[in-house]
Amino acid sequence: MAEEGESESVSRILPSSLLKERVALDTSLFVNPDVKNSLGANPTEALNVFLSIAAGIHTHEFYMPPSTFHELLNFADKDRIDGELLLILRQKPPKKYELKCPAVLLYELIEDMRDRVNRGLRVAESAVRATEKKKVDEIIQDLRKKYREALREGIIDSREDVDLLLLAMELDALLVTADQGLIKWAEKFGIRWLIPEKFRDYLEAAAKRSRELMQS
Amino acid sequence: MAEEGESESVSRILPSSLLKERVALDTSLFVNPDVKNSLGANPTEALNVFLSIAAGIHTHEFYMPPSTFHELLNFADKDRIDGELLLILRQKPPKKYELKCPAVLLYELIEDMRDRVNRGLRVAESAVRATEKKKVDEIIQDLRKKYREALREGIIDSREDVDLLLLAMELDALLVTADQGLIKWAEKFGIRWLIPEKFRDYLEAAAKRSRELMQS
Repeated sequence: MAEEGESESVSRILPSSLLKERVALDTSLFVNPDVKNSLGANPTEALNVFLSIAAGIHTHEFYMPPSTFHELLNFADKDRIDGELLLILRQKPPKKYELKCPAVLLYELIEDMRDRVNRGLRVAESAVRATEKKKVDEIIQDLRKKYREALREGIIDSREDVDLLLLAMELDALLVTADQGLIKWAEKFGIRWLIPEKFRDYLEAAAKRSRELMQS
Repeated sequence: MAEEGESESVSRILPSSLLKERVALDTSLFVNPDVKNSLGANPTEALNVFLSIAAGIHTHEFYMPPSTFHELLNFADKDRIDGELLLILRQKPPKKYELKCPAVLLYELIEDMRDRVNRGLRVAESAVRATEKKKVDEIIQDLRKKYREALREGIIDSREDVDLLLLAMELDALLVTADQGLIKWAEKFGIRWLIPEKFRDYLEAAAKRSRELMQS
């Protein structure tokens, strides 16, 4: 943790908080097995590793929408998370009634949904035909999985996704997520995003620079 | 049709085209059986009745996006439509790359789709279970109908819908449509809309006022 003397020297180097780089984080960073492993073996450990590195970074502000933060707490062991998380990971919802998005995105969202709806129907039809060979209960389980894949994957499909996307837009923040649907939409909105596997390297580089700034 | 002398006197009364009321029309007005009957027995007749009244209206400009116009031509007997339609019903796409929409609508669109996707899955599941009682081909036909109802009704789900909505927004036009999904979205966007069954009355009132203005 930064000591008082250190914080003061940082505020001399960076007089305005506007100079701080903003970063918007997704739950998936701490939960998605492909990504969280670079931080820790489980969500709680991944969060604690993030905290221990982020506490030494004075050049960045980390944000998460409350909806996403709430989701994250469901995955972590609350008793093993340091209260400092509440200071370091700022919770802020986007100004959803003020922000505007390009109308052309409506076309993309709607055409994307049309494709998915058609794919969902094809999944349903083959499930019905499969009843000639397999048991109904087995088919329904399979149907649920395939239907969800056809309709949900690679799309922003929840309030939490929209919150994170709009928050990154509002703050002109760097978005860090392991969710491909969100990355696809970050591309449409012109939001900066980081390859999620590189998040730990990014944090460590920022911590190193913070130390160097303090020494100079 | 307006004669030259008439047009001139109108332009003395209304020096600026800005004074003209703009109206954005949907195909559904001429095709939807509940609504078109107030204009004519079939789409071609409905269009011709619209043309004959609209030709006498100098206070309004009628618009339709090209995508919607194209759709309309599929329903009408092209040989029986007067070329004047091309003058009276202006074809204009919305400036889709310039227009912005409130970001909060993303939440509504996405939550609406989530509900529908869940409903679609329930429809698919009961179709699979129905195979224990009915024939597969019969069930599939029923599935297609119910699935489309669950996922499509009351939603803007096509490029044409978005075109019309954005065009009305861009022109600050009165939207006239028989599509409940479009009306629901016009409400969200603050776009003026007319009860579609009243469209003929609206046209006739506008024609009457145009005649009165000419005489005064």
